[in-house]
Amino acid sequence: MTNLKNDLLLRALLRLPVERTPVWMMRQAGRYLPEYRQTRAKAGSFMKLCCTPELACEVTLQPLRRYAFDAAILFSDILTVPDAMGLGLYFVEGEGPKFSYPVRDAQAIKKLAIPDPESDLRYVTDAIRLIVGELNGQVPLIGFSGSPWTIATYMVEGGSSKEFANIKSLLFDEPELLHQLLDKNAQAITEYLKAQIAAGVQIVMIFDTWGGVLAPDKYREFSLPYMQQIIQALPHEVNGQVIPKILFTKGAGPLLADMALSGCDALGVDWMTSLTDARTYVQDKVALQGNLDPSVLYARPEIIKQEVSKVLADYGNGPGHVFNLGHGIHPGIDPEHVAAMVEAVHELSPQHHNH
Amino acid sequence: MTNLKNDLLLRALLRLPVERTPVWMMRQAGRYLPEYRQTRAKAGSFMKLCCTPELACEVTLQPLRRYAFDAAILFSDILTVPDAMGLGLYFVEGEGPKFSYPVRDAQAIKKLAIPDPESDLRYVTDAIRLIVGELNGQVPLIGFSGSPWTIATYMVEGGSSKEFANIKSLLFDEPELLHQLLDKNAQAITEYLKAQIAAGVQIVMIFDTWGGVLAPDKYREFSLPYMQQIIQALPHEVNGQVIPKILFTKGAGPLLADMALSGCDALGVDWMTSLTDARTYVQDKVALQGNLDPSVLYARPEIIKQEVSKVLADYGNGPGHVFNLGHGIHPGIDPEHVAAMVEAVHELSPQHHNH
Repeated sequence: MTNLKNDLLLRALLRLPVERTPVWMMRQAGRYLPEYRQTRAKAGSFMKLCCTPELACEVTLQPLRRYAFDAAILFSDILTVPDAMGLGLYFVEGEGPKFSYPVRDAQAIKKLAIPDPESDLRYVTDAIRLIVGELNGQVPLIGFSGSPWTIATYMVEGGSSKEFANIKSLLFDEPELLHQLLDKNAQAITEYLKAQIAAGVQIVMIFDTWGGVLAPDKYREFSLPYMQQIIQALPHEVNGQVIPKILFTKGAGPLLADMALSGCDALGVDWMTSLTDARTYVQDKVALQGNLDPSVLYARPEIIKQEVSKVLADYGNGPGHVFNLGHGIHPGIDPEHVAAMVEAVHELSPQHHNH
Repeated sequence: MTNLKNDLLLRALLRLPVERTPVWMMRQAGRYLPEYRQTRAKAGSFMKLCCTPELACEVTLQPLRRYAFDAAILFSDILTVPDAMGLGLYFVEGEGPKFSYPVRDAQAIKKLAIPDPESDLRYVTDAIRLIVGELNGQVPLIGFSGSPWTIATYMVEGGSSKEFANIKSLLFDEPELLHQLLDKNAQAITEYLKAQIAAGVQIVMIFDTWGGVLAPDKYREFSLPYMQQIIQALPHEVNGQVIPKILFTKGAGPLLADMALSGCDALGVDWMTSLTDARTYVQDKVALQGNLDPSVLYARPEIIKQEVSKVLADYGNGPGHVFNLGHGIHPGIDPEHVAAMVEAVHELSPQHHNH
């Protein structure tokens, strides 16, 4: 179905038969790798790393040199889009992302322009073209974006937040204004992901990191519909190759049932929901990706193998499972422990596909 | 059934008929109140406030002077027990609680002694006796503790944590050691809550703030059984008056079904689970307490009233609902907005009990 040398992930995301469960890892290009820290130090800043296609390409490929992962994921940040909208993204060591110009009123929302990815986010599409060239069909490349709601939390709060006081005030007091912002974000993300697909990514994932801070009725009003809007606007296939779409809301729980009806192909699942329950919620309408507790990687390799085995058994037999963590890898993990996880998936998963 | 002037909360927790839904608020004695901030400033430190019975009594009563709440809750901290175990609790402004002597190995766990509440935590039982005297039967007093798992996270991490690296390493690599710690915590909390009941609290609540960071199978092994152990060791009644027990795990979701079988009378529900779903999970075996998103209190009073109405309707008709937030009130809330919430519950809830 493709000219990829390894199309396991594409098949699993479309719930087609596979010989073994494909595996990749959220934040697989990251601080736990000494070679990443070295490149990051040379770049001088996180933003420089994101904005320099050669460096973004280099760190994207680093984990594939160590581990038998079944995908590469573009190294970038979920806040590139609001940065391109002119909000002035910067990072403060130990405090996370900040925006110089938070968006808090009707005028600020009205002023926001939809970026043209091929000019305003050219460094991203250039990185994708470089990576696809380097990968040369070895494994697929995943592109991604933050969700409209999740990006909006940073845009309105001006950075990370614990209580989301500003965006929740907006949500309750001026819901129409928030809807305008979310609609702009959805338009911008649609253009961004279209450009990523045109540049060569074979899969896209939308990260809704903060969807789980919403009550279920608010999630159904302020997060899910805008992710659905994006999915429906993206091409179903390119040159005869289906482009699978993955949604991930941390803390979704039973809301996975609603997410499965969005038109996506697969859902990321965090470790607080068992894959057995998740399968019940989604009724096998979509594939599931997850969900090892990232903290398992602190444990000894034998324990990691045991816990990998439990996740595989929790999903059960048959197609539609992509092995992953339930959230991004923690920066302090020993790289040897990641190797233990990947080996365990390779060794233990084939038995779940012999049916 | 009691000599309380207002026993609405006791009845609702036992699923007996009520004329209207009782209401109180997690962290109702707290920083959002100017009179609290004044007392706190006079005390000089948070710990001084906790450890001085007259001051703890004063701040416990402050919210009742403003609002028609149906309960007082002891002003204290979930970390008084490990402090009494000798871990050296202190607070760093803006960073939260810290322990001078974190517990990380077999020797440290073995060394932990079960505190005698009437000597080691005398300031708590003294505060309770003062508060009960002052309340004079106006409303019941709720006592509380952290859960064995939640307290253990602070004891092992040495303070607050985002990734729980140390306790999760212990959990995966040395589960037997963690079980020893949790068992000691459960014993200590049992003695502590027994002493609170003997001193006069009419209801107890166990806060499992961090149970939700565990995968479901780990929650069932490392958090729930130890809360159950405590509940089963506490007196069912005192002088013919049943002592209701409330469990609250933030992020419990479908695990509420398991919690309902623990022997508790009621479950706290956060705002990420709808009360309709929660009622389905617990099959009306226990009462439910919650679950307004604390951020609703940032909104205008009309909106607060609308959202209160939605929570009441979400629970539906019949007994067994206690109105509360889905988590503690945020410090920045306008006290007038709390008044709007309480008034809305008084005005809108009777229609749900005329059946």
